[in-house]
Amino acid sequence: MSTLGHPSNVFWHQCTVGKAEREKLLNQQGCIVWITGLSGSGKSTLACTLGRELHSRGKLSYILDGDNVRHGLNKNLGFSPEDRTENIRRVGEVAKLFADAGLICITSLISPYRKDRDACRAMLPDAFVEVFMNIPIEVCEGRDPKGLYKLARAGKIKGFTGIDDPYEPPLNCEIELQLKEGACPTPNEMAGQVVSYLEGRGFLQTL
Amino acid sequence: MSTLGHPSNVFWHQCTVGKAEREKLLNQQGCIVWITGLSGSGKSTLACTLGRELHSRGKLSYILDGDNVRHGLNKNLGFSPEDRTENIRRVGEVAKLFADAGLICITSLISPYRKDRDACRAMLPDAFVEVFMNIPIEVCEGRDPKGLYKLARAGKIKGFTGIDDPYEPPLNCEIELQLKEGACPTPNEMAGQVVSYLEGRGFLQTL
Repeated sequence: MSTLGHPSNVFWHQCTVGKAEREKLLNQQGCIVWITGLSGSGKSTLACTLGRELHSRGKLSYILDGDNVRHGLNKNLGFSPEDRTENIRRVGEVAKLFADAGLICITSLISPYRKDRDACRAMLPDAFVEVFMNIPIEVCEGRDPKGLYKLARAGKIKGFTGIDDPYEPPLNCEIELQLKEGACPTPNEMAGQVVSYLEGRGFLQTL
Repeated sequence: MSTLGHPSNVFWHQCTVGKAEREKLLNQQGCIVWITGLSGSGKSTLACTLGRELHSRGKLSYILDGDNVRHGLNKNLGFSPEDRTENIRRVGEVAKLFADAGLICITSLISPYRKDRDACRAMLPDAFVEVFMNIPIEVCEGRDPKGLYKLARAGKIKGFTGIDDPYEPPLNCEIELQLKEGACPTPNEMAGQVVSYLEGRGFLQTL
């Protein structure tokens, strides 16, 4: 199968391996699963469970987590409105590169503003799957896994989404996860809903 | 193989799919192949040929090209010294994410300053393969595929690497590509040298 040592006229367009070829190698289609919702709504849990489930099916995914990216690529950004927008933009651009590489790129960021999310959607409109964690703030605040709501209520964090900064829910998201009869869906139920969607759209195989 | 629907206590550490698991899926080890050299030295040609050769062996790679990244992730950067450094830093951070995802990430940027390249190396010291295109500037300028040397000589581009801005050659690169008896190596010869190196280091399989 190797092409080395075979003399040939190498043209740039022949030379470059394209997205479709990478997807064929992986037997999947590159896309972005953009998880949005309040702090404590379960974004990271869904991202991890979804990644695990996809892996068990032999699919390659990668999680871009808001907190983690801020330690590397976005470590020179703060929390001003401009920096928040730039934070989302860079994650969107990187997610697009991962999708182009053939991966199922899962992003996990609050991403509270519709215009920032829509700008990311516009980067890859045919393969952008927006997942809205529609969990009431009372539930999220009750969990408060990082203790941030407590700090925000005490006025020690300013501009906290849901407290003194708005969360703008998606208007046309692909998937909405919400309470059923007052109970939160389990991580496996949430991941299952996303996997079913991806399967239905054909992202888990090549044509 | 699916874990969905199997009731279990899900712990975060069990849940997250790690680098080693992705590498096992791909039967390769994530790494960064950092190609550096003058404009016209053949960086893009090597990147493409290497990507093609790896693909023919069933390996997943992805090319981060300086010009392309400047149209997306780095489109808000110019060519000031600070912006050039930030350009390289972001590419390094993204390459690190790709390597963490299990891919062989090939970067193709002039990256003329040693400190910028070394900062990227420091992000992933055990899996950073620096490839120096040691092609004399006369050869690069003779090719001048983008007509940039001509513009630089005419003073229409300022701060052009090799003309009025320095190129700092690597001191301890993993691979150096150079003329043999006055002749440039072919793209296949160059790619072959890199593939042999990756093979020798064990990156083309998992343990």
